[in-house]
Amino acid sequence: MADYSRFDATEIKQWTSAVFEKLGAPADDANMTTNALIHADLMGIDSHGLNRVTVASYAGGLKSGAINAKAVPEIVHEAGSTAVIDGQNGLGPVASTVAMDLAIAKAKETGAGFVSIRGSNHYGASSHYSTMALPHNMIGFSMTVGGLGVVATGGRGRRIGINPMSVAAPAGDAMPFILDIATSVVAAGKLELARMKEQPVPTGWIVDSKGADTNDPNEFWKGGAILPLGGGPSTGGYKGYGLSVMIDILAGVLSGGGHIGESRDGRSGATCHFQGALALEHFGSVENFKATMDRLVAYLKATEPAEGSLGVLVHGEREVSIEQQRLKDGIPYHREVVGRLTELASDVGVPLPTPVAVE
Amino acid sequence: MADYSRFDATEIKQWTSAVFEKLGAPADDANMTTNALIHADLMGIDSHGLNRVTVASYAGGLKSGAINAKAVPEIVHEAGSTAVIDGQNGLGPVASTVAMDLAIAKAKETGAGFVSIRGSNHYGASSHYSTMALPHNMIGFSMTVGGLGVVATGGRGRRIGINPMSVAAPAGDAMPFILDIATSVVAAGKLELARMKEQPVPTGWIVDSKGADTNDPNEFWKGGAILPLGGGPSTGGYKGYGLSVMIDILAGVLSGGGHIGESRDGRSGATCHFQGALALEHFGSVENFKATMDRLVAYLKATEPAEGSLGVLVHGEREVSIEQQRLKDGIPYHREVVGRLTELASDVGVPLPTPVAVE
Repeated sequence: MADYSRFDATEIKQWTSAVFEKLGAPADDANMTTNALIHADLMGIDSHGLNRVTVASYAGGLKSGAINAKAVPEIVHEAGSTAVIDGQNGLGPVASTVAMDLAIAKAKETGAGFVSIRGSNHYGASSHYSTMALPHNMIGFSMTVGGLGVVATGGRGRRIGINPMSVAAPAGDAMPFILDIATSVVAAGKLELARMKEQPVPTGWIVDSKGADTNDPNEFWKGGAILPLGGGPSTGGYKGYGLSVMIDILAGVLSGGGHIGESRDGRSGATCHFQGALALEHFGSVENFKATMDRLVAYLKATEPAEGSLGVLVHGEREVSIEQQRLKDGIPYHREVVGRLTELASDVGVPLPTPVAVE
Repeated sequence: MADYSRFDATEIKQWTSAVFEKLGAPADDANMTTNALIHADLMGIDSHGLNRVTVASYAGGLKSGAINAKAVPEIVHEAGSTAVIDGQNGLGPVASTVAMDLAIAKAKETGAGFVSIRGSNHYGASSHYSTMALPHNMIGFSMTVGGLGVVATGGRGRRIGINPMSVAAPAGDAMPFILDIATSVVAAGKLELARMKEQPVPTGWIVDSKGADTNDPNEFWKGGAILPLGGGPSTGGYKGYGLSVMIDILAGVLSGGGHIGESRDGRSGATCHFQGALALEHFGSVENFKATMDRLVAYLKATEPAEGSLGVLVHGEREVSIEQQRLKDGIPYHREVVGRLTELASDVGVPLPTPVAVE
C-alpha cells in the first residue's frame, strides 16, 4: 500500500486557502494563513503545516468561533521603529504577517523595525516570518510564546514555554542563513514518537514529576517536563531557560499580553509573538554583507567532519534544498494525513486536489 | 594565611582608572573601561574583571601599543535607528559604551536602537552593556564575537565562537532580568579548572580532536573543542551552533568586520560586537510592563523545587545580590590576584589601595 501522496504546491495552497475562505476568512487572510502553513510543509518542518494537526486546529477554531475569522489586527501603539499589534483573536498568521510587513516598512525607513504582538493564535513556523525579510535585503527575527511544557532549571513541572525563535540573514550565491529553533532540548512531537515506538529517550531530554532525569518518554505525560536547551544544570540548561523567558518578555510582557503563566497557553486569542527586521543598507554595503555571508557559509562548510559524520550543515541549508525539491516534485503527505485532509475537504465542501504522485 | 583581601569598590575603581590613565587613556575612556571590568567583579562574574587576567591584558595592550589608548570610535554608518561604529583599535569598553549610549539615544526617539561595532577589542562582560539600558526604562541587548574554541555540529576542531550574549529587562519591585550566557556549553575557564584539579568533565562539554565525546579536559588542548550550547546532535547542539553564528552575523558580518574565521580571533582591533535597546514607552505603559515583570519573576520563583534542589533562580538574581553585598562589604580578590595587581601597581607607579578586610 502506498504510504505517501505528493501534491502540487500551488494546488494544495489553493485548496487550503479555499478551505479557510469557506470557513469565513477574507481571501487575503486565508492566503496569509495558507502561506504560513505551506511554508512549513515545503521546508520539511513537518510539525507545523498540513502534515500535523495544525490545519485541523486552525479550521476547527474558525468553525467553532474560538478563532475570529473576521478579526482585523489593530495597531495599539506605534513609534518610528516599533509597534504593538493586537491580533483581536484572529488567525495567528494574519496578525503576524501584518506585523512583519510593518517591521519591514519601519526598517526600510530607520534601519530597524520591531513589533510585539498580543491577542493572537498559533502562527505556524517562526521561519516563515523571519524569511519574509530576506527579499528586502534585511535580517529577519521572529519569536513566539507557546508550548507550556518546559521545566525551569532547579524546579519541577511545566513552567516555561518551548518558545521558538528564528533569525534569517540573506547571502549572495550561498543559501540564506535560517536559524529556526525551540528553546527547549526537543519538541513534544519527538516524545510522542518515542512513546509510540516504545523507545527510551536520551538522557537530557526530559525530567519526571520530581524534576529528576529519566529516559522513559511516558514520564512526560505523568507530570514530567521537557528540559530547556542545554539540558540539566551542569550542561547549561539555565541558558535555554533564560532564552525561553527572554522570548516571554519580548512577546508576552512587552505586548501587554501577559507572561506565559498568565496567558493560559493555548487559550484562544492569548498567544503573543515578537518580530523584527534590520535593513542591511542602513549598516553599510549590502553587497559587502552578502559577500561576507558567502565566505562565512563556505568557511563553515569547509569544516573537517567529525569521525562518522557526513559533514557540517549550515542552518537553513537542508530546509531550502527540501523546498526547492518539493516545489518541483510536490509535497509528500502520509496517508493518515491525506485521510484527515480528505475528511476536512468533505466537511467544508472543497474537494482535495488529485495527487501528482503516489509512492 | 589569608586567602582573600576585600577592596572598597570605589577605591579599586579609582585605582583601575588611574592605571589606565597612566598608560595613556583619556580620563573618560579610563572610566568606561574601569566600569566594565568592575561591573564583572561586583556581580561575581569572576572571569571578566580584575579577578582574572583581563586587566593585565588590557594594561599590557595599552603598554605595548597593541591597543591604541588614544583611539576615538568613529560612526561609519548611521540611520534613524541603527549605526555602525569602528572602534579604531581602541579599548573595547570605550567603543562599546559609546555604541550603547548611541543605541539608547536612538531608542529614546524611535523605540529601537541597534549598533554593530567593528575594530574593537575585548569588552568585558556582555551584561555591562545590556544593563546600561535599565535606568532608561529600556530592554538592553549586547553580544560579542570571541573565543574561537567551539566545534560546529557534525565537525571537528575549533571553528566557531564562544560568542556570549546578554539581554536585560527592568522590573518594578523585583530585581531586573539579566541573562548573560555564552552560546557554548561552558567557558574555557571551567576546563582550565578541571585540568588543574585533574578531574573529568561531564559528557557533553567537549569533544576530542576527532570530534568524539570525551571526559578528559586535557583533550581540549590537544585539538579538541568545546561543544555548542545543547551539546551533541541528539540534544540540540545545532541550536547553540546557530546562536553562535547568529552573533557572528550581527556583530562581525553586519559591522563589516568580517566573520570569525577571518577576524583572527583575539587579534588586536579585530573584535566585533552588537548592541541595542528597545524603549518600553514606545510599546505601551512602562508601569504595566514592570508590573507584569514582577508577576513573571514571582511566578518563576514560585516553581516547586526539583528533589534535592534549593529552588529556581531568575537570571540576574544571584548577580544583583552579590553586587549589593560587594558594594557594602568590598570586592574580594584572591591573594594570587592581589599579587598580580600589586605588580601592575608598582609597574605603572599607582599604589594599590589598602584592603578593607582580609579573610
